[in-house]
Amino acid sequence: MLNDNFQSWVHARQHAVENALAGILPNSVPFRLHDAMRYSTLGGGKRVRPLLAHAAGEISGADAESVMRVSCAVELIHAYSLVHDDLPCMDDDVLRRGKPTCHVEYDEATALLVGDSLQSLAFEVISERAVAKDPAVQLEMVRLLAHAAGSRGMAGGQAIDLDSVGRQLDLPELENMHIRKTGELIRAAILLGAYCGEIDNEELANLDHFAKSVGLAFQVVDDILDAESSTATLGKTAGKDSKHNKPTYVSLLGVKQAKEMAQDLHRSAMEALEGFGERAERLRQMTDFIVQRQF
Amino acid sequence: MLNDNFQSWVHARQHAVENALAGILPNSVPFRLHDAMRYSTLGGGKRVRPLLAHAAGEISGADAESVMRVSCAVELIHAYSLVHDDLPCMDDDVLRRGKPTCHVEYDEATALLVGDSLQSLAFEVISERAVAKDPAVQLEMVRLLAHAAGSRGMAGGQAIDLDSVGRQLDLPELENMHIRKTGELIRAAILLGAYCGEIDNEELANLDHFAKSVGLAFQVVDDILDAESSTATLGKTAGKDSKHNKPTYVSLLGVKQAKEMAQDLHRSAMEALEGFGERAERLRQMTDFIVQRQF
Repeated sequence: MLNDNFQSWVHARQHAVENALAGILPNSVPFRLHDAMRYSTLGGGKRVRPLLAHAAGEISGADAESVMRVSCAVELIHAYSLVHDDLPCMDDDVLRRGKPTCHVEYDEATALLVGDSLQSLAFEVISERAVAKDPAVQLEMVRLLAHAAGSRGMAGGQAIDLDSVGRQLDLPELENMHIRKTGELIRAAILLGAYCGEIDNEELANLDHFAKSVGLAFQVVDDILDAESSTATLGKTAGKDSKHNKPTYVSLLGVKQAKEMAQDLHRSAMEALEGFGERAERLRQMTDFIVQRQF
Repeated sequence: MLNDNFQSWVHARQHAVENALAGILPNSVPFRLHDAMRYSTLGGGKRVRPLLAHAAGEISGADAESVMRVSCAVELIHAYSLVHDDLPCMDDDVLRRGKPTCHVEYDEATALLVGDSLQSLAFEVISERAVAKDPAVQLEMVRLLAHAAGSRGMAGGQAIDLDSVGRQLDLPELENMHIRKTGELIRAAILLGAYCGEIDNEELANLDHFAKSVGLAFQVVDDILDAESSTATLGKTAGKDSKHNKPTYVSLLGVKQAKEMAQDLHRSAMEALEGFGERAERLRQMTDFIVQRQF
Protein backbone atom coordinates (compact mmCIF):
# COMPACT_ATOMS: atom_id res chain seq x y z
CA MET A 1 0.00 0.00 0.00
CA LEU A 2 1.11 3.53 -0.72
CA ASN A 3 1.46 5.30 2.59
CA ASP A 4 1.14 8.93 3.61
CA ASN A 5 4.89 9.39 3.73
CA PHE A 6 5.11 8.44 0.05
CA GLN A 7 2.13 10.63 -0.91
CA SER A 8 3.67 13.67 0.70
CA TRP A 9 7.06 12.90 -0.90
CA VAL A 10 5.31 12.77 -4.30
CA HIS A 11 3.49 16.05 -3.74
CA ALA A 12 6.62 17.80 -2.48
CA ARG A 13 8.65 16.54 -5.48
CA GLN A 14 5.91 17.48 -7.98
CA HIS A 15 5.77 20.95 -6.49
CA ALA A 16 9.56 21.32 -6.56
CA VAL A 17 9.75 20.12 -10.19
CA GLU A 18 7.08 22.64 -11.16
CA ASN A 19 9.09 25.43 -9.51
CA ALA A 20 12.35 24.29 -11.08
CA LEU A 21 10.78 24.17 -14.56
CA ALA A 22 9.24 27.61 -14.01
CA GLY A 23 12.73 28.92 -13.20
CA ILE A 24 14.33 27.24 -16.21
CA LEU A 25 11.79 28.19 -18.89
CA PRO A 26 12.71 31.57 -20.42
CA ASN A 27 10.48 34.58 -19.89
CA SER A 28 11.96 36.95 -22.46
CA VAL A 29 11.74 37.80 -26.18
CA PRO A 30 10.15 36.14 -28.17
CA PHE A 31 7.33 36.37 -25.62
CA ARG A 32 4.63 34.48 -27.48
CA LEU A 33 6.89 31.46 -28.04
CA HIS A 34 8.08 31.50 -24.44
CA ASP A 35 4.49 31.87 -23.17
CA ALA A 36 3.50 28.85 -25.22
CA MET A 37 6.46 26.85 -23.89
CA ARG A 38 5.40 27.65 -20.32
CA TYR A 39 1.76 26.86 -21.12
CA SER A 40 2.74 23.43 -22.44
CA THR A 41 5.14 22.50 -19.65
CA LEU A 42 3.81 24.03 -16.43
CA GLY A 43 0.62 23.55 -14.45
CA GLY A 44 0.23 19.85 -14.16
CA GLY A 45 1.33 16.47 -15.31
CA LYS A 46 2.14 13.54 -13.05
CA ARG A 47 5.89 14.21 -13.40
CA VAL A 48 6.47 10.45 -13.38
CA ARG A 49 9.88 10.73 -15.03
CA PRO A 50 11.21 13.35 -12.57
CA LEU A 51 9.85 11.29 -9.66
CA LEU A 52 11.68 8.24 -10.98
CA ALA A 53 14.89 10.24 -11.39
CA HIS A 54 14.65 11.48 -7.81
CA ALA A 55 13.92 7.98 -6.51
CA ALA A 56 16.88 6.59 -8.48
CA GLY A 57 19.09 9.35 -7.10
CA GLU A 58 18.42 8.01 -3.61
CA ILE A 59 20.14 4.77 -4.63
CA SER A 60 23.37 6.52 -5.57
CA GLY A 61 23.40 9.26 -2.93
CA ALA A 62 22.95 11.90 -5.63
CA ASP A 63 23.11 15.63 -5.02
CA ALA A 64 19.54 17.06 -4.91
CA GLU A 65 20.23 20.00 -7.21
CA SER A 66 21.82 17.79 -9.87
CA VAL A 67 18.90 15.35 -9.78
CA MET A 68 16.46 18.23 -10.16
CA ARG A 69 18.39 19.47 -13.19
CA VAL A 70 18.36 16.10 -15.00
CA SER A 71 14.69 15.65 -13.97
CA CYS A 72 13.83 18.89 -15.70
CA ALA A 73 15.82 17.94 -18.80
CA VAL A 74 13.90 14.67 -19.11
CA GLU A 75 10.56 16.38 -18.43
CA LEU A 76 11.28 18.98 -21.13
CA ILE A 77 11.83 16.16 -23.65
CA HIS A 78 8.56 14.56 -22.48
CA ALA A 79 6.71 17.89 -22.74
CA TYR A 80 8.05 18.50 -26.26
CA SER A 81 6.88 15.04 -27.34
CA LEU A 82 3.34 15.70 -26.06
CA VAL A 83 3.09 19.02 -27.95
CA HIS A 84 4.21 17.41 -31.21
CA ASP A 85 2.09 14.25 -30.68
CA ASP A 86 -1.03 16.38 -30.28
CA LEU A 87 -0.52 18.19 -33.63
CA PRO A 88 -3.12 17.65 -36.37
CA CYS A 89 -0.67 15.64 -38.51
CA MET A 90 -0.12 13.23 -35.58
CA ASP A 91 -2.86 12.39 -33.04
CA ASP A 92 -4.82 15.59 -33.75
CA ASP A 93 -5.82 15.98 -30.13
CA VAL A 94 -7.48 19.01 -28.56
CA LEU A 95 -7.21 18.22 -24.84
CA ARG A 96 -4.12 17.67 -22.67
CA ARG A 97 -3.92 17.82 -18.88
CA GLY A 98 -7.50 19.17 -18.89
CA LYS A 99 -6.57 22.17 -21.08
CA PRO A 100 -6.66 22.90 -24.83
CA THR A 101 -3.55 21.51 -26.51
CA CYS A 102 -0.82 23.95 -27.52
CA HIS A 103 -1.76 24.23 -31.21
CA VAL A 104 -5.41 24.87 -30.22
CA GLU A 105 -4.53 27.52 -27.65
CA TYR A 106 -1.87 29.14 -29.88
CA ASP A 107 -1.44 27.90 -33.45
CA GLU A 108 0.23 25.04 -35.28
CA ALA A 109 3.41 26.89 -36.24
CA THR A 110 3.91 28.00 -32.65
CA ALA A 111 3.30 24.47 -31.35
CA LEU A 112 5.90 23.15 -33.78
CA LEU A 113 8.46 25.69 -32.52
CA VAL A 114 7.48 25.04 -28.89
CA GLY A 115 8.34 21.35 -29.26
CA ASP A 116 11.56 22.11 -31.13
CA SER A 117 12.61 24.66 -28.51
CA LEU A 118 11.75 22.46 -25.52
CA GLN A 119 14.01 19.78 -26.98
CA SER A 120 16.91 22.22 -27.37
CA LEU A 121 16.31 23.54 -23.85
CA ALA A 122 16.58 20.01 -22.43
CA PHE A 123 20.10 19.73 -23.79
CA GLU A 124 21.00 23.20 -22.57
CA VAL A 125 19.77 22.30 -19.08
CA ILE A 126 21.69 19.02 -18.90
CA SER A 127 24.96 20.55 -20.12
CA GLU A 128 25.19 24.06 -18.65
CA ARG A 129 26.12 23.15 -15.05
CA ALA A 130 27.93 20.23 -13.48
CA VAL A 131 25.49 17.42 -12.59
CA ALA A 132 28.10 14.68 -12.19
CA LYS A 133 31.49 14.80 -10.48
CA ASP A 134 33.22 13.71 -13.69
CA PRO A 135 32.46 15.83 -16.82
CA ALA A 136 33.10 12.72 -18.95
CA VAL A 137 30.22 11.00 -17.13
CA GLN A 138 28.06 14.04 -17.81
CA LEU A 139 28.84 13.77 -21.54
CA GLU A 140 27.66 10.15 -21.37
CA MET A 141 24.46 11.47 -19.73
CA VAL A 142 23.91 13.90 -22.62
CA ARG A 143 24.43 11.05 -25.08
CA LEU A 144 22.00 8.80 -23.16
CA LEU A 145 19.27 11.47 -23.21
CA ALA A 146 19.82 12.22 -26.92
CA HIS A 147 19.70 8.54 -27.83
CA ALA A 148 16.55 7.99 -25.73
CA ALA A 149 14.80 10.91 -27.43
CA GLY A 150 15.85 10.18 -31.00
CA SER A 151 15.01 7.93 -33.93
CA ARG A 152 16.18 4.79 -32.14
CA GLY A 153 14.28 5.82 -29.02
CA MET A 154 11.13 7.87 -28.45
CA ALA A 155 10.75 9.45 -31.90
CA GLY A 156 11.45 6.06 -33.49
CA GLY A 157 8.72 4.46 -31.38
CA GLN A 158 6.38 7.18 -32.56
CA ALA A 159 7.27 6.36 -36.18
CA ILE A 160 6.57 2.66 -35.60
CA ASP A 161 3.28 3.65 -33.96
CA LEU A 162 2.30 5.67 -37.05
CA ASP A 163 3.08 2.76 -39.35
CA SER A 164 1.05 0.38 -37.17
CA VAL A 165 -2.32 2.16 -37.35
CA GLY A 166 -4.95 -0.17 -38.77
CA ARG A 167 -2.46 -3.02 -38.97
CA GLN A 168 -2.23 -6.06 -36.68
CA LEU A 169 0.97 -6.05 -34.58
CA ASP A 170 1.99 -9.14 -32.66
CA LEU A 171 3.12 -8.92 -29.04
CA PRO A 172 6.89 -8.66 -29.74
CA GLU A 173 6.23 -5.86 -32.28
CA LEU A 174 4.01 -4.01 -29.82
CA GLU A 175 6.64 -4.40 -27.13
CA ASN A 176 9.39 -3.16 -29.44
CA MET A 177 7.29 -0.08 -30.23
CA HIS A 178 6.64 0.73 -26.57
CA ILE A 179 10.20 0.09 -25.42
CA ARG A 180 11.14 2.90 -27.78
CA LYS A 181 8.11 5.15 -27.49
CA THR A 182 7.91 5.42 -23.70
CA GLY A 183 10.41 2.93 -22.28
CA GLU A 184 13.62 4.60 -23.41
CA LEU A 185 12.86 7.98 -21.83
CA ILE A 186 11.68 6.38 -18.56
CA ARG A 187 14.90 4.36 -18.56
CA ALA A 188 16.89 7.55 -19.21
CA ALA A 189 15.17 9.31 -16.26
CA ILE A 190 16.14 6.48 -13.91
CA LEU A 191 19.73 6.10 -15.12
CA LEU A 192 20.32 9.86 -15.24
CA GLY A 193 19.08 10.22 -11.65
CA ALA A 194 21.51 7.51 -10.56
CA TYR A 195 24.41 8.96 -12.58
CA CYS A 196 24.18 12.14 -10.48
CA GLY A 197 25.64 10.13 -7.59
CA GLU A 198 28.03 7.21 -7.29
CA ILE A 199 26.99 3.89 -8.83
CA ASP A 200 29.03 0.85 -9.88
CA ASN A 201 28.54 -1.22 -13.03
CA GLU A 202 26.73 -4.10 -11.34
CA GLU A 203 24.28 -1.74 -9.67
CA LEU A 204 23.82 0.05 -12.98
CA ALA A 205 22.98 -3.24 -14.71
CA ASN A 206 20.35 -4.05 -12.05
CA LEU A 207 18.92 -0.56 -12.29
CA ASP A 208 18.77 -0.90 -16.07
CA HIS A 209 16.80 -4.15 -15.70
CA PHE A 210 14.46 -2.40 -13.27
CA ALA A 211 14.05 0.55 -15.64
CA LYS A 212 13.08 -1.66 -18.57
CA SER A 213 10.43 -3.51 -16.54
CA VAL A 214 8.92 -0.41 -15.01
CA GLY A 215 8.90 1.40 -18.38
CA LEU A 216 6.90 -1.39 -19.99
CA ALA A 217 4.61 -1.67 -16.95
CA PHE A 218 3.88 2.05 -17.29
CA GLN A 219 2.72 1.56 -20.87
CA VAL A 220 0.61 -1.53 -20.15
CA VAL A 221 -1.19 0.37 -17.37
CA ASP A 222 -1.62 3.36 -19.72
CA ASP A 223 -3.36 1.10 -22.23
CA ILE A 224 -5.64 -0.31 -19.50
CA LEU A 225 -6.51 3.20 -18.26
CA ASP A 226 -7.16 4.43 -21.80
CA ALA A 227 -9.63 1.56 -22.29
CA GLU A 228 -11.34 1.79 -18.89
CA SER A 229 -11.29 5.45 -17.77
CA SER A 230 -13.25 8.53 -18.72
CA THR A 231 -11.82 11.63 -20.35
CA ALA A 232 -12.56 13.65 -17.20
CA THR A 233 -10.47 11.32 -15.02
CA LEU A 234 -7.53 11.18 -17.43
CA GLY A 235 -7.44 14.90 -18.30
CA LYS A 236 -6.81 13.82 -21.88
CA THR A 237 -9.03 12.19 -24.48
CA ALA A 238 -9.86 8.65 -23.32
CA GLY A 239 -10.53 5.68 -25.58
CA LYS A 240 -8.58 7.23 -28.45
CA ASP A 241 -6.44 4.17 -29.05
CA SER A 242 -9.42 2.02 -30.04
CA LYS A 243 -10.99 4.97 -31.88
CA HIS A 244 -7.83 5.25 -33.99
CA ASN A 245 -7.70 1.47 -34.31
CA LYS A 246 -4.28 1.47 -32.64
CA PRO A 247 -2.91 -1.81 -31.36
CA THR A 248 -2.60 -1.82 -27.53
CA TYR A 249 -1.91 -4.41 -24.86
CA VAL A 250 -5.65 -4.41 -24.16
CA SER A 251 -6.64 -4.92 -27.81
CA LEU A 252 -4.08 -7.67 -28.16
CA LEU A 253 -4.41 -9.49 -24.83
CA GLY A 254 -7.75 -8.34 -23.39
CA VAL A 255 -8.03 -6.42 -20.11
CA LYS A 256 -7.58 -9.46 -17.84
CA GLN A 257 -4.33 -10.64 -19.41
CA ALA A 258 -3.02 -7.07 -19.71
CA LYS A 259 -3.51 -6.67 -15.96
CA GLU A 260 -1.64 -9.93 -15.35
CA MET A 261 1.18 -8.66 -17.53
CA ALA A 262 1.37 -5.45 -15.48
CA GLN A 263 1.64 -7.57 -12.32
CA ASP A 264 4.40 -9.72 -13.85
CA LEU A 265 6.38 -6.62 -14.80
CA HIS A 266 5.84 -5.22 -11.31
CA ARG A 267 7.33 -8.41 -9.85
CA SER A 268 10.26 -8.37 -12.25
CA ALA A 269 10.98 -4.71 -11.42
CA MET A 270 10.91 -5.43 -7.68
CA GLU A 271 13.32 -8.38 -8.11
CA ALA A 272 15.84 -6.16 -9.88
CA LEU A 273 15.90 -3.90 -6.80
CA GLU A 274 16.61 -6.67 -4.28
CA GLY A 275 20.32 -5.97 -3.88
CA PHE A 276 19.78 -2.29 -3.04
CA GLY A 277 18.12 -2.71 0.38
CA GLU A 278 16.69 0.40 2.00
CA ARG A 279 18.18 2.72 -0.61
CA ALA A 280 15.60 1.52 -3.17
CA GLU A 281 12.54 2.14 -0.98
CA ARG A 282 11.38 5.14 -3.03
CA LEU A 283 11.84 3.22 -6.28
CA ARG A 284 9.72 0.38 -4.85
CA GLN A 285 7.00 2.84 -3.89
CA MET A 286 7.21 4.41 -7.35
CA THR A 287 6.76 0.96 -8.90
CA ASP A 288 3.60 0.40 -6.82
CA PHE A 289 2.41 3.88 -7.75
CA ILE A 290 2.91 3.30 -11.48
CA VAL A 291 1.07 -0.02 -11.49
CA GLN A 292 -1.76 1.00 -9.15
CA ARG A 293 -2.45 4.51 -10.47
CA GLN A 294 -5.96 5.39 -11.68
CA PHE A 295 -4.98 8.32 -13.96
CA MET B 1 39.15 36.33 -56.12
CA LEU B 2 38.42 32.77 -55.09
CA ASN B 3 41.20 30.63 -56.47
CA ASP B 4 41.37 27.01 -57.61
CA ASN B 5 43.00 25.92 -54.36
CA PHE B 6 39.98 27.20 -52.42
CA GLN B 7 37.49 25.66 -54.86
CA SER B 8 39.07 22.25 -54.53
CA TRP B 9 39.23 22.59 -50.73
CA VAL B 10 35.48 23.37 -50.74
CA HIS B 11 34.65 20.40 -52.94
CA ALA B 12 36.81 18.03 -50.91
CA ARG B 13 35.21 19.23 -47.64
CA GLN B 14 31.68 19.04 -49.04
CA HIS B 15 32.35 15.51 -50.21
CA ALA B 16 33.85 14.52 -46.84
CA VAL B 17 30.91 16.03 -44.92
CA GLU B 18 28.48 14.13 -47.13
CA ASN B 19 30.34 10.88 -46.39
CA ALA B 20 30.53 11.60 -42.67
CA LEU B 21 26.79 12.36 -42.49
CA ALA B 22 26.04 9.19 -44.45
CA GLY B 23 28.01 7.23 -41.86
CA ILE B 24 26.30 8.93 -38.91
CA LEU B 25 22.67 8.70 -40.07
CA PRO B 26 21.14 5.40 -38.93
CA ASN B 27 20.14 2.77 -41.47
CA SER B 28 18.09 0.47 -39.25
CA VAL B 29 14.55 0.07 -37.86
CA PRO B 30 12.39 2.18 -38.20
CA PHE B 31 13.41 2.15 -41.88
CA ARG B 32 10.92 4.67 -43.24
CA LEU B 33 11.90 7.30 -40.68
CA HIS B 34 15.60 6.67 -41.23
CA ASP B 35 15.13 6.79 -45.03
CA ALA B 36 13.39 10.13 -44.66
CA MET B 37 16.17 11.45 -42.41
CA ARG B 38 18.76 10.47 -45.04
CA TYR B 39 16.62 11.93 -47.84
CA SER B 40 16.46 15.26 -46.02
CA THR B 41 20.12 15.48 -45.04
CA LEU B 42 22.16 13.86 -47.81
CA GLY B 43 22.64 14.64 -51.49
CA GLY B 44 23.35 18.31 -51.56
CA GLY B 45 23.39 21.57 -49.74
CA LYS B 46 26.23 24.07 -49.73
CA ARG B 47 27.40 22.83 -46.31
CA VAL B 48 28.30 26.42 -45.40
CA ARG B 49 28.25 25.74 -41.65
CA PRO B 50 30.55 22.69 -41.84
CA LEU B 51 32.90 24.61 -44.15
CA LEU B 52 33.04 27.44 -41.60
CA ALA B 53 33.70 24.97 -38.77
CA HIS B 54 36.57 23.44 -40.75
CA ALA B 55 38.01 26.85 -41.59
CA ALA B 56 37.76 27.93 -37.93
CA GLY B 57 39.44 24.70 -36.88
CA GLU B 58 42.51 25.77 -38.90
CA ILE B 59 42.87 28.75 -36.57
CA SER B 60 43.13 26.59 -33.46
CA GLY B 61 45.03 23.62 -34.91
CA ALA B 62 41.99 21.40 -34.37
CA ASP B 63 41.97 17.67 -34.91
CA ALA B 64 40.31 16.84 -38.26
CA GLU B 65 38.08 14.08 -36.94
CA SER B 66 36.73 16.26 -34.12
CA VAL B 67 35.98 19.14 -36.48
CA MET B 68 34.14 16.76 -38.78
CA ARG B 69 32.04 15.53 -35.86
CA VAL B 70 30.97 19.03 -34.72
CA SER B 71 30.41 20.01 -38.37
CA CYS B 72 27.96 17.15 -38.71
CA ALA B 73 26.21 18.05 -35.46
CA VAL B 74 25.66 21.63 -36.68
CA GLU B 75 24.56 20.45 -40.13
CA LEU B 76 22.02 18.06 -38.55
CA ILE B 77 20.50 21.00 -36.65
CA HIS B 78 20.40 22.99 -39.89
CA ALA B 79 18.82 20.07 -41.78
CA TYR B 80 16.16 19.61 -39.07
CA SER B 81 15.28 23.30 -39.27
CA LEU B 82 14.80 23.13 -43.05
CA VAL B 83 12.46 20.12 -42.78
CA HIS B 84 10.30 21.84 -40.17
CA ASP B 85 10.41 25.24 -41.94
CA ASP B 86 9.07 23.64 -45.12
CA LEU B 87 6.00 22.13 -43.35
CA PRO B 88 2.54 23.40 -44.38
CA CYS B 89 2.02 25.20 -41.05
CA MET B 90 5.28 27.14 -41.59
CA ASP B 91 6.52 28.14 -45.10
CA ASP B 92 4.49 25.41 -46.84
CA ASP B 93 7.21 24.81 -49.40
CA VAL B 94 7.40 21.96 -51.90
CA LEU B 95 10.95 22.30 -53.23
CA ARG B 96 14.29 22.10 -51.43
CA ARG B 97 17.72 21.51 -52.97
CA GLY B 98 15.95 20.80 -56.26
CA LYS B 99 13.91 17.92 -54.78
CA PRO B 100 10.41 17.61 -53.26
CA THR B 101 10.48 18.63 -49.58
CA CYS B 102 10.34 15.90 -46.95
CA HIS B 103 6.61 16.16 -46.18
CA VAL B 104 5.81 16.05 -49.92
CA GLU B 105 8.05 13.03 -50.59
CA TYR B 106 6.92 11.21 -47.38
CA ASP B 107 4.14 12.76 -45.27
CA GLU B 108 3.70 15.47 -42.66
CA ALA B 109 3.88 13.23 -39.61
CA THR B 110 7.11 11.67 -40.88
CA ALA B 111 8.60 15.09 -41.64
CA LEU B 112 7.77 16.21 -38.10
CA LEU B 113 9.55 13.15 -36.66
CA VAL B 114 12.48 13.58 -39.09
CA GLY B 115 13.13 17.09 -37.76
CA ASP B 116 12.73 15.99 -34.16
CA SER B 117 15.08 13.04 -34.67
CA LEU B 118 17.73 15.03 -36.54
CA GLN B 119 17.87 17.43 -33.60
CA SER B 120 18.34 14.58 -31.11
CA LEU B 121 20.98 13.03 -33.36
CA ALA B 122 22.95 16.29 -33.39
CA PHE B 123 23.30 16.12 -29.60
CA GLU B 124 24.17 12.43 -29.73
CA VAL B 125 26.90 13.15 -32.28
CA ILE B 126 28.45 16.02 -30.33
CA SER B 127 28.51 14.09 -27.03
CA GLU B 128 29.31 10.47 -27.86
CA ARG B 129 33.05 10.82 -28.55
CA ALA B 130 35.72 13.22 -27.34
CA VAL B 131 35.94 16.29 -29.60
CA ALA B 132 37.88 18.49 -27.18
CA LYS B 133 40.83 17.62 -24.95
CA ASP B 134 38.90 18.72 -21.85
CA PRO B 135 35.44 17.12 -21.34
CA ALA B 136 34.34 20.28 -19.50
CA VAL B 137 35.02 22.27 -22.70
CA GLN B 138 32.99 19.70 -24.62
CA LEU B 139 30.04 20.24 -22.24
CA GLU B 140 30.30 23.97 -22.99
CA MET B 141 30.18 23.05 -26.70
CA VAL B 142 26.96 21.05 -26.15
CA ARG B 143 25.46 24.02 -24.31
CA LEU B 144 26.51 26.42 -27.07
CA LEU B 145 24.85 24.27 -29.75
CA ALA B 146 21.68 23.84 -27.68
CA HIS B 147 21.44 27.57 -26.99
CA ALA B 148 22.04 28.43 -30.67
CA ALA B 149 19.29 26.04 -31.76
CA GLY B 150 16.68 26.95 -29.15
CA SER B 151 14.11 29.61 -28.36
CA ARG B 152 16.74 32.31 -27.78
CA GLY B 153 18.51 31.26 -30.98
CA MET B 154 17.34 29.73 -34.25
CA ALA B 155 13.83 28.62 -33.20
CA GLY B 156 13.27 31.99 -31.50
CA GLY B 157 14.27 33.80 -34.71
CA GLN B 158 11.78 31.64 -36.55
CA ALA B 159 9.06 32.67 -34.07
CA ILE B 160 9.91 36.37 -34.56
CA ASP B 161 9.80 35.77 -38.32
CA LEU B 162 6.28 34.27 -38.02
CA ASP B 163 5.07 37.23 -36.01
CA SER B 164 6.54 39.69 -38.51
CA VAL B 165 4.67 38.53 -41.62
CA GLY B 166 2.66 41.39 -43.08
CA ARG B 167 4.05 43.80 -40.49
CA GLN B 168 6.68 46.50 -40.97
CA LEU B 169 9.91 45.74 -39.08
CA ASP B 170 12.57 48.39 -38.71
CA LEU B 171 16.23 47.62 -39.33
CA PRO B 172 17.18 46.79 -35.69
CA GLU B 173 14.17 44.42 -35.44
CA LEU B 174 15.07 42.72 -38.70
CA GLU B 175 18.67 42.40 -37.54
CA ASN B 176 17.58 40.94 -34.18
CA MET B 177 15.47 38.38 -36.01
CA HIS B 178 18.29 37.31 -38.32
CA ILE B 179 20.94 37.20 -35.61
CA ARG B 180 18.78 34.52 -34.01
CA LYS B 181 17.36 32.81 -37.06
CA THR B 182 20.59 32.19 -38.98
CA GLY B 183 23.34 34.06 -37.13
CA GLU B 184 23.44 32.00 -33.94
CA LEU B 185 23.94 28.65 -35.69
CA ILE B 186 26.61 30.08 -38.01
CA ARG B 187 28.35 31.50 -34.94
CA ALA B 188 28.07 28.11 -33.23
CA ALA B 189 29.64 26.38 -36.24
CA ILE B 190 32.63 28.72 -36.16
CA LEU B 191 33.17 28.62 -32.38
CA LEU B 192 32.67 24.84 -32.21
CA GLY B 193 35.26 24.32 -34.94
CA ALA B 194 37.72 26.46 -32.98
CA TYR B 195 36.93 24.76 -29.65
CA CYS B 196 38.16 21.46 -31.14
CA GLY B 197 41.69 22.87 -30.93
CA GLU B 198 43.48 25.33 -28.63
CA ILE B 199 42.23 28.91 -28.51
CA ASP B 200 42.68 31.65 -25.91
CA ASN B 201 40.01 34.10 -24.73
CA GLU B 202 41.22 37.05 -26.78
CA GLU B 203 41.27 34.96 -29.95
CA LEU B 204 37.82 33.62 -29.06
CA ALA B 205 36.47 37.18 -28.71
CA ASN B 206 37.86 38.13 -32.14
CA LEU B 207 36.45 34.98 -33.67
CA ASP B 208 33.09 35.75 -32.08
CA HIS B 209 33.11 39.21 -33.64
CA PHE B 210 33.99 37.65 -37.00
CA ALA B 211 31.22 35.06 -36.60
CA LYS B 212 28.56 37.70 -35.94
CA SER B 213 29.55 39.75 -39.00
CA VAL B 214 29.74 36.80 -41.34
CA GLY B 215 26.43 35.39 -40.05
CA LEU B 216 24.62 38.62 -40.81
CA ALA B 217 26.39 38.97 -44.18
CA PHE B 218 25.15 35.48 -45.06
CA GLN B 219 21.55 36.54 -44.43
CA VAL B 220 21.81 39.84 -46.30
CA VAL B 221 23.20 37.99 -49.33
CA ASP B 222 20.42 35.38 -48.98
CA ASP B 223 17.83 38.14 -49.19
CA ILE B 224 19.51 39.64 -52.27
CA LEU B 225 19.64 36.24 -53.96
CA ASP B 226 16.01 35.50 -53.10
CA ALA B 227 15.00 38.77 -54.75
CA GLU B 228 17.27 38.48 -57.82
CA SER B 229 17.63 34.77 -58.67
CA SER B 230 15.45 32.17 -60.34
CA THR B 231 14.09 29.05 -58.65
CA ALA B 232 16.23 26.88 -60.94
CA THR B 233 19.46 28.57 -59.81
CA LEU B 234 18.60 28.45 -56.11
CA GLY B 235 17.23 24.88 -56.03
CA LYS B 236 14.50 26.23 -53.76
CA THR B 237 11.52 28.47 -54.41
CA ALA B 238 12.78 31.97 -55.30
CA GLY B 239 11.00 35.23 -54.54
CA LYS B 240 9.02 33.68 -51.70
CA ASP B 241 9.95 36.38 -49.21
CA SER B 242 8.17 39.08 -51.18
CA LYS B 243 5.35 36.65 -52.07
CA HIS B 244 4.76 36.07 -48.33
CA ASN B 245 5.17 39.79 -47.68
CA LYS B 246 8.12 39.05 -45.40
CA PRO B 247 10.40 41.88 -44.41
CA THR B 248 13.93 41.45 -45.83
CA TYR B 249 17.02 43.59 -46.13
CA VAL B 250 16.05 44.14 -49.76
CA SER B 251 12.47 45.18 -48.96
CA LEU B 252 13.73 47.51 -46.23
CA LEU B 253 16.87 48.97 -47.85
CA GLY B 254 16.50 48.24 -51.56
CA VAL B 255 18.99 46.07 -53.48
CA LYS B 256 21.70 48.73 -53.78
CA GLN B 257 21.91 49.53 -50.08
CA ALA B 258 21.59 45.85 -49.15
CA LYS B 259 24.63 45.14 -51.31
CA GLU B 260 26.54 47.94 -49.59
CA MET B 261 25.59 46.47 -46.22
CA ALA B 262 26.95 43.08 -47.32
CA GLN B 263 30.22 44.77 -48.27
CA ASP B 264 30.42 46.57 -44.90
CA LEU B 265 29.89 43.30 -43.04
CA HIS B 266 32.52 41.66 -45.24
CA ARG B 267 35.01 44.37 -44.25
CA SER B 268 34.12 44.10 -40.56
CA ALA B 269 34.55 40.31 -40.67
CA MET B 270 37.95 40.64 -42.31
CA GLU B 271 39.12 43.15 -39.70
CA ALA B 272 38.25 40.75 -36.88
CA LEU B 273 40.60 38.19 -38.46
CA GLU B 274 43.61 40.51 -38.66
CA GLY B 275 45.43 39.14 -35.63
CA PHE B 276 45.34 35.55 -36.85
CA GLY B 277 47.71 35.92 -39.81
CA GLU B 278 48.03 32.93 -42.14
CA ARG B 279 45.95 30.66 -39.88
CA ALA B 280 42.79 32.54 -40.91
CA GLU B 281 43.32 32.23 -44.68
CA ARG B 282 40.49 29.70 -45.11
CA LEU B 283 38.13 31.84 -43.05
CA ARG B 284 38.97 34.84 -45.27
CA GLN B 285 38.27 32.79 -48.37
CA MET B 286 35.01 31.57 -46.80
CA THR B 287 34.01 35.18 -46.15
CA ASP B 288 34.61 36.06 -49.81
CA PHE B 289 32.69 32.94 -50.82
CA ILE B 290 29.68 33.82 -48.66
CA VAL B 291 29.44 37.39 -49.92
CA GLN B 292 30.16 36.60 -53.60
CA ARG B 293 28.08 33.42 -53.98
CA GLN B 294 25.36 33.27 -56.63
CA PHE B 295 23.26 30.45 -55.08
